[in-house]
Amino acid sequence: MLSTIIHAPGDVRLEERPDPTILEPTDAVIRTVATCVCGSDLWRYRGIQEVKRPTPIGHEYVGVVEAVGGAVTTVRPGQFVVEGFLTSDNTCPLCKAGAHANCQNGTGYDGCQAELIRVQNAEGTLLATPEDPEDAMVPSLLALSDVMCTGWHAAVSADVRPGSTVVVVGDGAVGLCGVLAASQLGAERVIAMSRHADRQAIARAFGATDVVAQRGDEGVEQVMEMTGGVGADAVLECVGTEDSVAQALRSARAGGMVGWVGVPHVTQLPQEHMFWKNVGLRGGPAPVRAYLPDLLKRVWDGTIEPGKVFDLTLPLDHVAEAYAAMDQRRATKVLLRP
Amino acid sequence: MLSTIIHAPGDVRLEERPDPTILEPTDAVIRTVATCVCGSDLWRYRGIQEVKRPTPIGHEYVGVVEAVGGAVTTVRPGQFVVEGFLTSDNTCPLCKAGAHANCQNGTGYDGCQAELIRVQNAEGTLLATPEDPEDAMVPSLLALSDVMCTGWHAAVSADVRPGSTVVVVGDGAVGLCGVLAASQLGAERVIAMSRHADRQAIARAFGATDVVAQRGDEGVEQVMEMTGGVGADAVLECVGTEDSVAQALRSARAGGMVGWVGVPHVTQLPQEHMFWKNVGLRGGPAPVRAYLPDLLKRVWDGTIEPGKVFDLTLPLDHVAEAYAAMDQRRATKVLLRP
Repeated sequence: MLSTIIHAPGDVRLEERPDPTILEPTDAVIRTVATCVCGSDLWRYRGIQEVKRPTPIGHEYVGVVEAVGGAVTTVRPGQFVVEGFLTSDNTCPLCKAGAHANCQNGTGYDGCQAELIRVQNAEGTLLATPEDPEDAMVPSLLALSDVMCTGWHAAVSADVRPGSTVVVVGDGAVGLCGVLAASQLGAERVIAMSRHADRQAIARAFGATDVVAQRGDEGVEQVMEMTGGVGADAVLECVGTEDSVAQALRSARAGGMVGWVGVPHVTQLPQEHMFWKNVGLRGGPAPVRAYLPDLLKRVWDGTIEPGKVFDLTLPLDHVAEAYAAMDQRRATKVLLRP
Repeated sequence: MLSTIIHAPGDVRLEERPDPTILEPTDAVIRTVATCVCGSDLWRYRGIQEVKRPTPIGHEYVGVVEAVGGAVTTVRPGQFVVEGFLTSDNTCPLCKAGAHANCQNGTGYDGCQAELIRVQNAEGTLLATPEDPEDAMVPSLLALSDVMCTGWHAAVSADVRPGSTVVVVGDGAVGLCGVLAASQLGAERVIAMSRHADRQAIARAFGATDVVAQRGDEGVEQVMEMTGGVGADAVLECVGTEDSVAQALRSARAGGMVGWVGVPHVTQLPQEHMFWKNVGLRGGPAPVRAYLPDLLKRVWDGTIEPGKVFDLTLPLDHVAEAYAAMDQRRATKVLLRP
């Protein structure tokens, strides 16, 4: 089967690899229907994170069950399934507490930008759709595997409630999904920080009531002006840089909460914006399986359409172009079809 | 009137000062019934925080209203009142959001270890008791002015819920009140970290189900062993040192929450124990006025008796001895009577 391998910064290739097989009774093998490139894949593509050896890459996918191990009872071959970017057993004490991203028996994947994928912990990871989805729904189902659940996690971590004023820092796919999540959770006002007209349009479609193009000090000032000098009840940090984390903390009102989901590349957390202002910080990798049943329902009944974040679709054998397009910001998020 | 003045590290004196008067129509003047020394007062006493000039000190008190300005309608002379260590107007957007410690018009005090105290924002700060309290209840009412509300804030910030497993780091007055708060909020298990037999006894009386004497790595290991390798749902950080903050974050389970209320003296927040473990951090100075009506009720009806944290009572003119006793850990918290 064909699988995407990252060899070095700027060098991803689709290559022949052995078909994955059932190794444990708790495994499944999935035939990919759609996969995509994540902003976090770009850390290696850009050389910010080391590539030690040629490595299969990708952690987002939807597909059809090809085979299951003997211990897997909840899905069967032929079913269309959704799932998260990490596997989880859905039974350990941390899963029971809703912290599926930190499952005691959780694993990653051996590269999901591929035709076939071995899924460990299949029983606790995969969720079958009620029936085969229309093709038009596939992008939104794919978005559940990471960006939509990650945006949701930002909003939940930031304690967004009905009536909240929310600021979303970051207009990538996760930030845009954060706007959608905040809106779904009942926020009265959702201020999207975005400088790009195309992303601003998606943010508006996802429920942003305001768009602020400024960043840093100017962005914070603008938010303060819009909130009567108070700041936002909840801030979603969807970037992960030193500047964006500081901007998020400074945009919160005293007693407010920042939900951070952008993989942090921060030397030092700016605690001066935390303790004395009573601003909290919570988040991390999203516990996808905790949110998946609810979010699958919202996609299935047409309430949300997070697939709008995909603004380019390519065949899997154009994967190198997919990376280049995201790296050069010609696309927000690229969907790949095997 | 007599007021406590800190002149330099190790040097506090009771001195004659002019009686405070009503300067604004929103002021009140209180005749002190009881006051006390705070762990945070010791930062200056120990020379960790600079004393630039002789300064009135103290921010905890209960007393009887002596006079009120023309704009004060909710309390009247002769009433016994409780209140917090900061004043708040109870009407600004931050107070309305429950963030009274960050009130837009909030102030501190000009020294509360004194016979008379000028209170700004009296209307939004002072709360009269239903009637004059019995003398035996005065310590518990005094505890509401800081330590009990601060312990409560730690528990609320750490998201303690019915059934939670809670760890409390710090066995000072705030930590002990944190134990009481967690227990009141329905925690199933409250693990108090304490090495002192007298404080362990108070912790047990306040609802601790377990006591752990170890600290640092050993303390974290012990907590992990007691929680099946998972960690606590909620951790209350009631010290504020580099070590205690790290210990608190490491004692939380993945997806758990640390409520921090110990004034932080931390060079760098150990984010390595936060993002990837999905452990959150929230807290700061307590919004006393937000909790006061509920907690006054619990004291008044005998549900809680936070005054047990006072293990030494002295006349106000022994204030120097009160500081020395707390500095040398001969007392957990000293109550002073004018």
